[in-house]
Amino acid sequence: MTATRGLEGVVATTSSISSIIDDTLTYVGYDIDDLAENACFEEVIYLLWHLKLPNKEQLAVLKQQLADNMDLPQGLIEGLKAFPKNAHPMAVLRTAVSQLGLYDDEAEVMEEKANYEKAIRLQAKMPAIVAAYARIRKGLEPVSPRKDFSFAENFLYLLKGEEPNAIAVEAFDKALVLHADHELNASTFTARVCVATLSDIYSGITSAIGALKGPLHGGANEQVMKMLSEIGSLEKVDSYVYDKLENKEKIMGFGHRVYRKGDPRAKHLKEMSQKLTDLTGEPHWFEMSTKIAQIVTSEKGLPPNVDFYSASVYHSLGVDHDLFTPIFAVSRVSGWLAHILEQYENNRLIRPRAEYTGPGKQSYIPLENR
Amino acid sequence: MTATRGLEGVVATTSSISSIIDDTLTYVGYDIDDLAENACFEEVIYLLWHLKLPNKEQLAVLKQQLADNMDLPQGLIEGLKAFPKNAHPMAVLRTAVSQLGLYDDEAEVMEEKANYEKAIRLQAKMPAIVAAYARIRKGLEPVSPRKDFSFAENFLYLLKGEEPNAIAVEAFDKALVLHADHELNASTFTARVCVATLSDIYSGITSAIGALKGPLHGGANEQVMKMLSEIGSLEKVDSYVYDKLENKEKIMGFGHRVYRKGDPRAKHLKEMSQKLTDLTGEPHWFEMSTKIAQIVTSEKGLPPNVDFYSASVYHSLGVDHDLFTPIFAVSRVSGWLAHILEQYENNRLIRPRAEYTGPGKQSYIPLENR
Repeated sequence: MTATRGLEGVVATTSSISSIIDDTLTYVGYDIDDLAENACFEEVIYLLWHLKLPNKEQLAVLKQQLADNMDLPQGLIEGLKAFPKNAHPMAVLRTAVSQLGLYDDEAEVMEEKANYEKAIRLQAKMPAIVAAYARIRKGLEPVSPRKDFSFAENFLYLLKGEEPNAIAVEAFDKALVLHADHELNASTFTARVCVATLSDIYSGITSAIGALKGPLHGGANEQVMKMLSEIGSLEKVDSYVYDKLENKEKIMGFGHRVYRKGDPRAKHLKEMSQKLTDLTGEPHWFEMSTKIAQIVTSEKGLPPNVDFYSASVYHSLGVDHDLFTPIFAVSRVSGWLAHILEQYENNRLIRPRAEYTGPGKQSYIPLENR
Repeated sequence: MTATRGLEGVVATTSSISSIIDDTLTYVGYDIDDLAENACFEEVIYLLWHLKLPNKEQLAVLKQQLADNMDLPQGLIEGLKAFPKNAHPMAVLRTAVSQLGLYDDEAEVMEEKANYEKAIRLQAKMPAIVAAYARIRKGLEPVSPRKDFSFAENFLYLLKGEEPNAIAVEAFDKALVLHADHELNASTFTARVCVATLSDIYSGITSAIGALKGPLHGGANEQVMKMLSEIGSLEKVDSYVYDKLENKEKIMGFGHRVYRKGDPRAKHLKEMSQKLTDLTGEPHWFEMSTKIAQIVTSEKGLPPNVDFYSASVYHSLGVDHDLFTPIFAVSRVSGWLAHILEQYENNRLIRPRAEYTGPGKQSYIPLENR
């Protein structure tokens, strides 16, 4: 037995949800480019969970179910208020989602219908948790969701407490579509390994949030924004980036294990970044990003990935930088839930082996003689 | 690319912590039989974390560090009091451990020293959480840990609120040693996949608890006790077990993916079960267990595993049946922590692939035309 570092290239499961083949990302056979241009996030949620696009009525039902389920249990809001205000927002989200399971009377019911309904509740309540915590830590009261709003609209409304403008909603909705699923990424794989013990959905999503929290996964776009802020202006890009390259320091937001030529999602986020930074009167974030990408791609051969332009997109939407990863989670939970439901359908415990590299057989020596 | 169901036989990592070779389980080269007979749980914790047995002074230091760190933040106790009283104890543990991270000022510090200190805090506070919740849901106040008690002693003390007897302490300590680590079991693997994104220790342990919660993993010994209670008496064993076998229903506590002939831990728990059920004047639990094992092993060729006799052991120690899995976690967290620290030392993102089995390329059809 020889260990494969990071399971690279190992096929861990079959899946009908999304595929990455020859640098093309599809959800259930639909090219991500088509979905980004045409579909709203609720359509994509339906697609990932039912493996087909909804008709008008099916879409209307799901939209209503999501809007109707965004309210949070009072105990959860009390919890968010009591947590230390300097806690990592992903640690707060991880805790709140785990706690949410305690209030769900069907948390332990392992039937298909109950699991689907839990998926709706989790998808609906995740944005409400992120928005509520974002307000609470600023001393503001959480806002109640609007039953007549779309998912994207409601999230921005819950965050800001005012009706969002149409361009912001459109951009955020597209960002949600682009982040919804990505085959067997590390957080999705964590969720599948977790629930393959037939543990419940809340355990699966809690563990996925824990994995997404890591800087090698969901934390990258926050790091990109940190870099942009550190650089500060267009003319400082050159020296900053070349210094980093010379010192062999990692520049976040480039390259991806499963793409050779480039991440197909990046171009959509690049376009949105240009549009939104124009709109907010801060085009330098976009210009700096483009220049960094030019240098890194020509020097290292690494194209920007999904995280690179999403930084300036989320910043332009007025989102606090440490909420970038929680927002990633608000989208990706749709994919996590699809994969968990798929895992339950045809489950087997995921239990690989380790190659033992420690000391050989040792005889126990009594404490007195050590 | 072809998927391996459940990653069976796939080597996912190297590890120096424990090994299972030819039905022999060793921790860092020491046979589990030797450790079960001779070592206390704190010695084993030290062994798993340092890859060597402690000398007298090192052991004394670790014992003191554990006893000193058992206190819980007041916010956490308030949380436990506020949670619904009918919540699944593993869901409560998952939430409380996640919440614990919010109070740890070093939660996000990724240095070796800080991570080691967090490991001590987690190892110390997990039993305190389980015991506090066990008391709170009965309307009792949590008890403060005793600085002069061993780990096993303290847990039983925190649970019951009175000094435990020596035989119970010895038995519980041995059960902790036997459950401490088990190579790349599903919860340990979940923890490693989670933290390979360089997420923090609290995320790793929270996700491992989520995985252990599943009935295909840690939930088995509770199911065994449920079965014993359902059967009720020795003379009903035959008809119950043969009925189950005839209906092809699973009998919990038998067989194990990585052992061929038998689980080396079972014999120690069997011995303890006999001793403790004698002591409590309930020898029928042991007798029923032995008879069930005889039938299942002769009919199905499956020997009992670690979960089978641990059911009557924990029952005899006066532990509520739904706390069997949380107690498993109180021991296994030592292994989870060892594996997380090992993962950090030589990290690579764990990101396998999925074999896509969904529909081929599909053209997007506008909503109006569906």
